[in-house]
Amino acid sequence: MTEDRFAATPQPPYWAVIFSNQRADGDAGYADMAARMVELAAQQPGFLGMESTRDASGFGITVSYWASEAAIAAWKANAEHQEARRLGRSQWYAGFELRVARVERAYRMRKG
Amino acid sequence: MTEDRFAATPQPPYWAVIFSNQRADGDAGYADMAARMVELAAQQPGFLGMESTRDASGFGITVSYWASEAAIAAWKANAEHQEARRLGRSQWYAGFELRVARVERAYRMRKG
Repeated sequence: MTEDRFAATPQPPYWAVIFSNQRADGDAGYADMAARMVELAAQQPGFLGMESTRDASGFGITVSYWASEAAIAAWKANAEHQEARRLGRSQWYAGFELRVARVERAYRMRKG
Repeated sequence: MTEDRFAATPQPPYWAVIFSNQRADGDAGYADMAARMVELAAQQPGFLGMESTRDASGFGITVSYWASEAAIAAWKANAEHQEARRLGRSQWYAGFELRVARVERAYRMRKG
């Protein structure tokens, strides 16, 4: 019943992009662009899944999972994604940390 | 103004433990234990910081950062943490994914 929020990642190794961010006030097209980026990322070669959550204060963490560093580089170079990143820096985020990491081990638990 | 939610991590490489989780219904001591685990983790050798958020549906992501794999292993072996993990599996979480990853690159943006 809770499976849909978890990314169905394969056995490690694979890669993770950890994006911790604080939203700025107002929407200014954010919701539409965020939905579009999820759709677009899912079409990229090497995309393995995404997990995302945000609390009422606007602090969010999104982790996307990728098969390789090359897949992350190709996504970073995507033109539509580049425009979204530009708007993110100028309008949507008060701050962020983006970390690129290689997943070495993974453990899972599910009930129900 | 938003800095306090971000972990002040050093230059990579370092390690990240990505804990994506769905809370089960009810508190059953969760809030107290979660606060205690944050306090206890911060006392561990090699602890570099933590970022955490959860939405109203109970889906949360907590990422803790560590100087080495050995530091993660020592935290995993901590007796009080082991008891918290046991209760987490039996009571607090409907499901989780825990991934151990080596952070290779990091980028930062702050305003205000």
